[in-house]
Amino acid sequence: MTLDPVLAQIDADLPDALDRLMDLLRIPSISTDPAFKADCDRAADWLVEDLKSIGVDAAKRPTPGHPMVVGHIDGPGPHVLFYGHYDVQPVDPLTLWDRDPFDPQIEDTPAGKVIRGRGSSDDKGQLMTFVEACRAWKTVHGALPCKITFFFEGEEESGSPSLVPFMKENADELKSDMALICDTALFDSRVPAITTMLRGMLGEELTIKAASKDLHSGFFGGVAANPIRVLSNVIASLHDDTGRITVPGFYDGVPELSNSLRAQWDGLGFDAERFLSGVDLSVPTGEEGRSPLEMIWSRPTCEVNGIWGGYTGDGFKTVIPAEAHAKISFRLVGDQDPHVIRESFRKMVEEQLPEDCDVEWHAHGASKAGQFDTEYPFYEAARGALSDEWPDTAAYIGCGGSIPIAGHFQNLLGTPPVLIGFGKDDDQIHSPNEKYDLESYHKGTRSWARVLAALQEIG
Amino acid sequence: MTLDPVLAQIDADLPDALDRLMDLLRIPSISTDPAFKADCDRAADWLVEDLKSIGVDAAKRPTPGHPMVVGHIDGPGPHVLFYGHYDVQPVDPLTLWDRDPFDPQIEDTPAGKVIRGRGSSDDKGQLMTFVEACRAWKTVHGALPCKITFFFEGEEESGSPSLVPFMKENADELKSDMALICDTALFDSRVPAITTMLRGMLGEELTIKAASKDLHSGFFGGVAANPIRVLSNVIASLHDDTGRITVPGFYDGVPELSNSLRAQWDGLGFDAERFLSGVDLSVPTGEEGRSPLEMIWSRPTCEVNGIWGGYTGDGFKTVIPAEAHAKISFRLVGDQDPHVIRESFRKMVEEQLPEDCDVEWHAHGASKAGQFDTEYPFYEAARGALSDEWPDTAAYIGCGGSIPIAGHFQNLLGTPPVLIGFGKDDDQIHSPNEKYDLESYHKGTRSWARVLAALQEIG
Repeated sequence: MTLDPVLAQIDADLPDALDRLMDLLRIPSISTDPAFKADCDRAADWLVEDLKSIGVDAAKRPTPGHPMVVGHIDGPGPHVLFYGHYDVQPVDPLTLWDRDPFDPQIEDTPAGKVIRGRGSSDDKGQLMTFVEACRAWKTVHGALPCKITFFFEGEEESGSPSLVPFMKENADELKSDMALICDTALFDSRVPAITTMLRGMLGEELTIKAASKDLHSGFFGGVAANPIRVLSNVIASLHDDTGRITVPGFYDGVPELSNSLRAQWDGLGFDAERFLSGVDLSVPTGEEGRSPLEMIWSRPTCEVNGIWGGYTGDGFKTVIPAEAHAKISFRLVGDQDPHVIRESFRKMVEEQLPEDCDVEWHAHGASKAGQFDTEYPFYEAARGALSDEWPDTAAYIGCGGSIPIAGHFQNLLGTPPVLIGFGKDDDQIHSPNEKYDLESYHKGTRSWARVLAALQEIG
Repeated sequence: MTLDPVLAQIDADLPDALDRLMDLLRIPSISTDPAFKADCDRAADWLVEDLKSIGVDAAKRPTPGHPMVVGHIDGPGPHVLFYGHYDVQPVDPLTLWDRDPFDPQIEDTPAGKVIRGRGSSDDKGQLMTFVEACRAWKTVHGALPCKITFFFEGEEESGSPSLVPFMKENADELKSDMALICDTALFDSRVPAITTMLRGMLGEELTIKAASKDLHSGFFGGVAANPIRVLSNVIASLHDDTGRITVPGFYDGVPELSNSLRAQWDGLGFDAERFLSGVDLSVPTGEEGRSPLEMIWSRPTCEVNGIWGGYTGDGFKTVIPAEAHAKISFRLVGDQDPHVIRESFRKMVEEQLPEDCDVEWHAHGASKAGQFDTEYPFYEAARGALSDEWPDTAAYIGCGGSIPIAGHFQNLLGTPPVLIGFGKDDDQIHSPNEKYDLESYHKGTRSWARVLAALQEIG
């Protein structure tokens, strides 16, 4: 089965492929908010139907949360699993969007055409690049070059509570020669990438409690503990003056970068100024003595993702609140153990609470960092295929984000993960005005067609 | 005109007086929230009608915000102005209320009957004690013992933006021999009080801004400034280890307590443990080496009244927000100048901002502390009248809250203020489940009847 007519078919079919993506983007499948449960279900149904239309034996598979979509289709090459997720991030603050996040549109921008809408990049657009590549193979040759298992999740943006149990229960069905995961980015517009290092994550929500009710700051101000002040002190204590995280034992298991990887990364010519200027920042914060690329790819972090307490409406209310809340996440690297760090973090906070104050904890996921072995021949095959499609040679890179699924394929199924994606730094995933470059969608689809051809070769 | 039949009329009329108060409490006149503008207007109309029903020449008077209610009625004694406010605090968090805040009810509690509902104590219940005392005088004697000007405001809980302009424009009409203000508390169940010291207030809302949009903490965590962390550092820096406020020059103009006042306050036997245990706290926080009564009556404070930023919904969103916000208020004493402190506070915050971060300010009111001269004969007359109604002799006390109107009467109109109120520490004003003791309402009304009789005497 030859590649060139498949690429030509992808080019010719792009308008229809875009229409299909737009259909999927119109479904507000926000997994973290129970109000959108039916929409998540609808997105899964849509995918089942679309897979069936190209001959895949696909079905919606129930879980205690949002359903999985699993599908199989045979082919001569190796058994390839493809993973993507159909759920999306919440859209607040809605006022910062220039258009309805679920009314997607192609927009002309100075940097080219983009697909604007929630999920366009993370992860519906990425997911559909693979589906469209398969459709083109099927249209041209009536068959796929590899045996393929499709595996789509609907809880990736809400901590994937059903994923591990489902993988364990269906291990025989999902076990494959490799797991292609499309949820990462290009290195830049010219350089495609295979991500071989991922940070882990630990999420914690805490509530500091003091008085049993909200108090009038005129009558109680000065004598009563203020949970917002206590919480602010906790947050202020999490970093020292050099930007290092102060949780005891936090850096246990954090490796230094090898000289060879440092040399390869230095060679990438990462432009921190350009990276930051895209979001109107200019100065890298973070640990003293670390390069920006190190900070986002291979150093652990601690960020406050949300905070709230007291009166937050219009006007002013002189209240000392009974409670204050924060959501805090740690990105982990190397052998950092999220469970050990969780305990140490909680102990540190509890030890600094003043009298009359309590803390309540709500755990939000814990995953170790991932590092993947590129010795398998399909790694170089995929790298070659990507390099054929894009101007420059594909790179093995790190990624600041956390994709726990990659570790699960490796550890639960013994299936080595291969992370290939076509997102860009400025896609504004998890932010208002998310977009996916039309070029990412088009060349991403062509890239997968090439990767499948290359995998067929190695058999 | 004799007092005893007036007191008997108040006792007999209590059920009807309660019905009237319930009517007023059912109007959700939340002044700080524009959604309740029509309700504020309705509360003003209700008061105009009620004053007219006792022969007062009353009218709703427009302002750029919520209307004032002004009414006049003649009498033989001195010209007495009475001030109260018909607006109420917001009710959130609604989930912490045991009943609809605007469906008031009489409840039996172990400590006696209470009127439960938003505004029952602050300030509709207090306001109506005076109106009911006037009604009883009018019913019994067909006239009032003093010339009375009623002056009700609808913006007290939202910074009183229209008050000073209105007082200036209508100075001749409002100028009186004294201004009775009913918005304060008893010292305790046995000891009524005239408040002669009030703390001032300075309110500030700040927004810390970093990136131009919300960022993904996986991709930007570690290199991009996080406004929640910056804001937490600002808040953590506002107090030193001894509980003193660190804003430069903050303590300029803060007087030490005179020995005589300290002795009088020590004599009151204030029970800090009981005061705090009412809200399930046990340990006074605040400045080292200061008594709890000093802290709430005569020392300045800095409190965070609200904080918000990032993702605050269900679940987790690994975002680095573009902005974080806080509402911060300072209670002021002595000669502290709110405008000087505002500038110093803003400068202090601006100087500690890291690169790439900006701050936006929103001022929320500024009033100096008040201290009132008790040499006028009507002070002792009122104190005697209160002492006749309650078990113990009335005390001159301080108050941690801020009632800027008291200073305005003194400074703008040359009218000395007299602050008498019947609230209690546990009224939960500004909090869920606000209440007013039935005893406060009943004996408060009787107290005003006595005060008016005593003022008539001094002519």
